[in-house]
Amino acid sequence: MPAAPLRETRIAHIGIAVDSLEAILPFYRDLLGMPEVPLGDSDGARITGLAAGDALVELLQPERADSPIGKFLAKRGPGIHHICFKVDDLDGTLARCLDAGHRLIDQVPRLGAEGKRIAFLHPASTAGVLIELTEY
Amino acid sequence: MPAAPLRETRIAHIGIAVDSLEAILPFYRDLLGMPEVPLGDSDGARITGLAAGDALVELLQPERADSPIGKFLAKRGPGIHHICFKVDDLDGTLARCLDAGHRLIDQVPRLGAEGKRIAFLHPASTAGVLIELTEY
Repeated sequence: MPAAPLRETRIAHIGIAVDSLEAILPFYRDLLGMPEVPLGDSDGARITGLAAGDALVELLQPERADSPIGKFLAKRGPGIHHICFKVDDLDGTLARCLDAGHRLIDQVPRLGAEGKRIAFLHPASTAGVLIELTEY
Repeated sequence: MPAAPLRETRIAHIGIAVDSLEAILPFYRDLLGMPEVPLGDSDGARITGLAAGDALVELLQPERADSPIGKFLAKRGPGIHHICFKVDDLDGTLARCLDAGHRLIDQVPRLGAEGKRIAFLHPASTAGVLIELTEY
């Protein structure tokens, strides 16, 4: 059986660290007109999604100061926290990144929000950008 | 004649400030498999685009230290600089943002790269995120 063609890498979501979901939600939802998408909590953060085509803007408000987003806010203030790309072959992509000398936060994929397989790359080897990879 | 239906707000591109296009390009192009899109210079930066579905990742390398990207790099180091959303009605969206008390960097749209009408919102009123708006 021939292999299925690879699907292109796309933006899955942009994660934005915020002090208050309630304060910024009207900007994205009402002024930019992005539909709100219910999302659960993850990694100690409350998440509100906003649809932008087939990608999401994810607003991340920490529930605890010692959560990853809580620490980010304390250090850098509110702003863009990470970009998540969906790729066709997560394991193969991670192996290629490791071979090329990139630093992985997750050596093997773990389960993220909604049971999806995800892995983070360290921003030190991606020009300062925290990158999450997930699978189609 | 009835009004045309509004098109949804989508991510046009994510702008990333980098010290060296050459150093990071292989990561996006070869490891993540994103096709390179030729883009010109803009605002004192060399830009390389990478296709992610119908959005772009734009890598921005300053040509001068006193350019907007040069100043950003000096102050914050490499990382995500801005998100650009394409909206259906740029003038109407800007008017709504102004009415709601948001701070605009561009009071009226100006011409950006490739002759598109664009306007930036100030991050002080968008939870720390520099947001560019452009039109379909």
